[in-house]
Order: sequence, then C-alpha cells, then structure tokens
Amino acid sequence: MIKSSAQELRIGILGGGQLGRMLLQSAIDFNLHVSVLDPDPDAPCKPLVDRFVQGSFRDHDTVMAFGANCDLITIEIEDVAVSALFELEAQGKLIYPQPRVIALIQDKREQKRWYQDKGFPTAPFVLTDYAKDVLNHAAMLPAFHKLGKGGYDGKGVVAIRQVEDWQQGFDTPALLEKAATINKEFAIIVARNTKGEVVAHPEVEMVFDPVHNLVSHLVSPSTLPSGVVEQAQAMAHNIVDELGIIGLLAIEFFYTQDGEIWVNEMAPRPHNSGHHTMRACPTSQFEQHWRAILGLPLGDTRLYMPAAMVNILGEPDYFGAAKYQGMDTILAQPLIFPHLYGKAITKPARKMGHVTIMAADNQELAKQITFVQQTLKVVA
Amino acid sequence: MIKSSAQELRIGILGGGQLGRMLLQSAIDFNLHVSVLDPDPDAPCKPLVDRFVQGSFRDHDTVMAFGANCDLITIEIEDVAVSALFELEAQGKLIYPQPRVIALIQDKREQKRWYQDKGFPTAPFVLTDYAKDVLNHAAMLPAFHKLGKGGYDGKGVVAIRQVEDWQQGFDTPALLEKAATINKEFAIIVARNTKGEVVAHPEVEMVFDPVHNLVSHLVSPSTLPSGVVEQAQAMAHNIVDELGIIGLLAIEFFYTQDGEIWVNEMAPRPHNSGHHTMRACPTSQFEQHWRAILGLPLGDTRLYMPAAMVNILGEPDYFGAAKYQGMDTILAQPLIFPHLYGKAITKPARKMGHVTIMAADNQELAKQITFVQQTLKVVA
Repeated sequence: MIKSSAQELRIGILGGGQLGRMLLQSAIDFNLHVSVLDPDPDAPCKPLVDRFVQGSFRDHDTVMAFGANCDLITIEIEDVAVSALFELEAQGKLIYPQPRVIALIQDKREQKRWYQDKGFPTAPFVLTDYAKDVLNHAAMLPAFHKLGKGGYDGKGVVAIRQVEDWQQGFDTPALLEKAATINKEFAIIVARNTKGEVVAHPEVEMVFDPVHNLVSHLVSPSTLPSGVVEQAQAMAHNIVDELGIIGLLAIEFFYTQDGEIWVNEMAPRPHNSGHHTMRACPTSQFEQHWRAILGLPLGDTRLYMPAAMVNILGEPDYFGAAKYQGMDTILAQPLIFPHLYGKAITKPARKMGHVTIMAADNQELAKQITFVQQTLKVVA
Repeated sequence: MIKSSAQELRIGILGGGQLGRMLLQSAIDFNLHVSVLDPDPDAPCKPLVDRFVQGSFRDHDTVMAFGANCDLITIEIEDVAVSALFELEAQGKLIYPQPRVIALIQDKREQKRWYQDKGFPTAPFVLTDYAKDVLNHAAMLPAFHKLGKGGYDGKGVVAIRQVEDWQQGFDTPALLEKAATINKEFAIIVARNTKGEVVAHPEVEMVFDPVHNLVSHLVSPSTLPSGVVEQAQAMAHNIVDELGIIGLLAIEFFYTQDGEIWVNEMAPRPHNSGHHTMRACPTSQFEQHWRAILGLPLGDTRLYMPAAMVNILGEPDYFGAAKYQGMDTILAQPLIFPHLYGKAITKPARKMGHVTIMAADNQELAKQITFVQQTLKVVA
C-alpha cells in the first residue's frame, strides 16, 4: 500500500524536540516530506522541516487541523491529544503508533493493568484516587505515588517512604507502586512494522551516579548476565507482539536484587536510551522507526563495538545563549561524537545534546565516559 | 580561534547538490548554521538549509553578495567563481578549501604541472593550445585530450586513439594525456584540518562493468595488494601536506599494469567515492570535512566491515516524477541502506541517490551488489 511510495506521503510529526530532529535527520536518506507541529517557534525541528506549524500537540482542534494535511502521522512525544488521533484514524489516516497504543501508555494506571492482564512481571501496585488511600497500603511502602495521566520526565511522581509521607501524594487518579529493590536498570528498543515483523536493538544499561542517584550515562551492551539479557529480549518481543504496536517501543526494565526482570514503563517512540544507535549500529533507532511505520523491512541492529551515551545537560547556574566548553578537547579523543540539539538557550539540566562514545573494550569506554563528563560543559 | 564557537559561525556552501545535502545532514550534529548558494530553486539542499540563495556560484558578483553574509565559506563543487573567493579571503573571511587550492584544481593543466613539479607520478602529458597540436605528439597516443578549464563529469574529455582522431580535440588550452594501461582504479579521501593534522579513510576501488566500461560500483577495502595500498596512502598523505589544503581532498589513482601508482586527478571536497563512509565508518567524509574546516580534531576512519556503494541512476528512457521500484525488496536484505538525494525529477543516468551495502565478507558483498543493481530501478 505504502511500499515504494514513501516519498509521496505527507508525513506529520507531533512534537518538534530533539527526538523529532533526529527523526528528520534520518528522513533525509529516504527523501521523506515531513511537517512538524510544536508550540515552540524555536523548536529543534524548525530549521530542518518542510512545513513547521506552531501550535499545541495537546490541543484537539490544533492536531485535527495539522492532521488534515497529512497522510501519515507519528509522534516524538506521547503526551498528545489522542482524541484527535482517534478521529483522524477513523477518517482513514495512518496513525503510527496507533492511537489505542498511545492512549494505553498515556495512562500509567492502564499501562500497569495491561502488564498485569498480559502476565508481564512488574512492580506490585494499587490504584488510588486520593492521597489518603496510601494509608490503606502501608505494606506497599516504600513506594512511588504516580499520577495516572500527565506525569512526565520525573514530574507526577513522588516517593512515599513511610506512612507519614502520605500527604505528598495525589488527590487525582494515581497508582501506588512498591519500590523495587533494584540491582540494575536497563532498556530495550523494539520495532514492529506494518507486517508484524519485530526487531530489537541490543539492551542498554542505565548506569547511576552513586552520589547523586541520577542516571550518569547509558551503556550497551549491559553488564547483565547473558541469561537475563535473553530473557528480557524475549519478554520485549512478547510485549511488542501483544501490543501490536506499529513503530518503536522503548521498554524500561528493572533487574531486581532477587534476580527478577520487571517491566518498569514503556514509551512508543524513539528514546534517550537509543541515541548511541546513530553511530554504533548499522540502523539507528530513528531509521528503524521510519522503516516500521512506512511498511518497510526492518534494519540490522548489531552493535559494532561497546558504546555509551552521555547526555549534554546545561550546567547549574547558567542561563542564556549556550556555549560548549571543552568541545575540541573531547573531539581530539578517538570515537567520541557529539550530537547537539539546536537549542539556542541553555538552562540548568536542560538536555542540549548527547555524546556517543565507542571503544574497543569496556575499560577504555569507562575511561572515556568519565573524561567526557569532566570535560564538556554547557555554559552561557 | 573558531574552536568551541562553531555554532556561532555563519557558514556558506557554494553548491546545493547531493554533496551539499549530505554535508547539511552531518551539520545537524554540530548545530551549524549554514546558507547555500545554488542556481536551481529545487536543489537537493533547499529543504534542509537555514538560508537558501538562488543564484549562480559561477558568477563573481553573486558569490561576493552571498559571501558578504558568511564568516566561513566552503564548496561542494569546484567549478565556482574563484576570483570572488580570493577577494572574500582578502577581506578576512575563512575560505576552506583555500582559493589557491580550488584555482589549482580548476585548471587541469596547472594540476598536472603541480604533480610533475612535486614529483608525484602521473600519466605522461603535454600541454596543447589547438587540436592540431595533437599531430606533433603521435607517440603519446592512444591518449585523452582534456580541456584545461571547465571540464566536468566526463565532459571536456575526448579519447584520441590514433592520429586521425585529432580533429575531435580542443582549440582551447588543453592537455594531451597518455592513456594509462590500467589494472585498477581507486581513490583515497584525505582530510587536513586547520592545525595541519591529516587523516585518510581506507582506499576505495572503482569497479568497472566490463561490458559498458562504466564504473559499476565502488568497494572498500580494495583488492589491491597491501603494499600498494600502503604506498598509495603515503602518497595521498604527502599530496595533502604539499598542497596544504584545509578540508577534504579526494584523490583518484591508477594502479597500472606495470605495477605503478599514478595520480589521476583530485577533488577538494566530499566525493562520490566516500559515500559509504556515512554507514561503514565511525566518521563520515561529510563530518570529516566539517571537522577539518572548523578547526576541530579529525575523526576515526576505520571501516567496520567490507562496504560497497552503488549509484542510483535514472533508468534510460524515463523522464518525470521519480519512482523507486524495488525499494522494499532491497531493504528486506540485511545491511543495505539507500540514501536518496531529494531530486523530484528523474532523467536517464541522473544521480538520484546511492545505496550502501555492507557484508561480513567479499563474496556476500559481491552477491548483494548484483542484487541491488538488478532490483532497484528509478522510473517515472
């Protein structure tokens, strides 16, 4: 149906951030004609797109109007007006990932229930409507209280360590999730195309900074036992099959201290944990997303060599026109590749870009990760 | 001087074809702000550039006006108004490659004399002013008569097999070059940055179709003996050092039946023989060009696995809106990656894109090259 005429499709992306930008960079190879909808007139996608529409992808009417000029719509953020996507789908537009998948993932309560229904292991949880509901589930603590809808990038999540913390919870539909005793966290990016073909990239480990308890960097392959990797890859494959998604699905997992593999959460789009694939694999996650939603066969996902990804974040206390200190210094080392997102203004902890690092072995890789983290700074 | 402020430079590219397009694709990673000058309002660069100026890069005044808004100017084609580049350089603009290098390479007679002066082996030649001069050099035949200036993509070159062919020659300054008895043809792409650092990509062999005597595909590494490769890499390094170019230099060589290595010609820009580097090497030729001219350290050029490049040419007899037959079929094979150039209209033999093919070994690679050539067709 689409097949060799991908070049003739009018494609729309909801969201114009860095994920959209890297989708556009990959779209060049296929000569795709893409429009982008984003509220920010200086969105990272703006300079690279055939048609940029300034407007909110969270607004039903704005998405309807944007979609009217598209044959195929995809997303780079899942927090979109899914009601409009259902309506556009009913009109016969291609919407990948499908609105039902986006709707499921938008609601963390539905998402957790889905894991439970389908038998995918996940952290124990209960649904709540009010903060005080926490008081009935003392045995679940320590736990995280998560908003059902609208939570994002760490927002909409609070830690409830003990019963006395209950007032920090939410008085809107939420879920209380038992804190996993985590050994390691990792992610697998899986693609499923219109023909039901499924291909995953090698697993990626999120490595935490033990001092700040923040993700320090991502590394692939992980340090997980190979049996765990196999089991997680099989589970990722099953999740994608069950979901029937068309497009990319990034699945985050916990490997618990008891040796169990739990699904943490999933995102139906390119993901921070797959950025290294632009350099370290024949097919990047971005190209894989295009292949999946255009009805094309999926690409090879082997890892050429051990790779890591370090986010380039705005330094604390700097606001204003971004300057990249130490860029020459990191580039003077072999196999270090920066990718900037085209954001003119830096602010503390803003994602300004990322660096992919490759090395012949894990020891060299670890050395280079530390070097990049200590050397490259975004200031103003 | 430039260093970490590459993002602040106003960069201009003369030429908006596929080489410029792939430069822009790579420029995204460095968040560069680029303008393009090209006479074609539908040039492949048009949809990807901050500022597109429609105009002739061969016209002095047009280049001067374009350059007035740039801090750094580079090229994707060497047939440009170099007089304007000298003037802009004198004004203090950064022009890489330098105008003196572009001027030398624009004039095939000067280029050949330069090889001779510097002691780089090249096919024997004489300079001519009139077609009849050929008659004085019968011993040089069979030979090629090449226009000094303005020849391009096979234009401006005629084969003079025997004395009787002399009237096909040029009555303008030209050179008569003895036809080499070629065993193999190959190319090496070398980069030299503002600090004089030099890095080359592995050599690429041009493989000819024995029936049509046209380049069928390019493959890297080549089938040359390793001693020849070492010698050619050393020569490429010396050429770039002698030339003092800042930017990429693609050098084409003959490996003669007598076992000699002769320089054929050179191009001071990204080159058809380096397209596979976008997939098969950590650093593509396009990124390497940016690194070189931005004063950044050069990147790693290792080849991940044997790679080939097949040009996607418009089929004979088809004119009009391009359609790509067989695209799904080739994509269903592992490690086959099309790169389309965004040209809406196909015509016979027009370069519409290229395909990069990788494989674990040369036998598999050869099979896939034939498969792609037989399967992918550009029709209208």
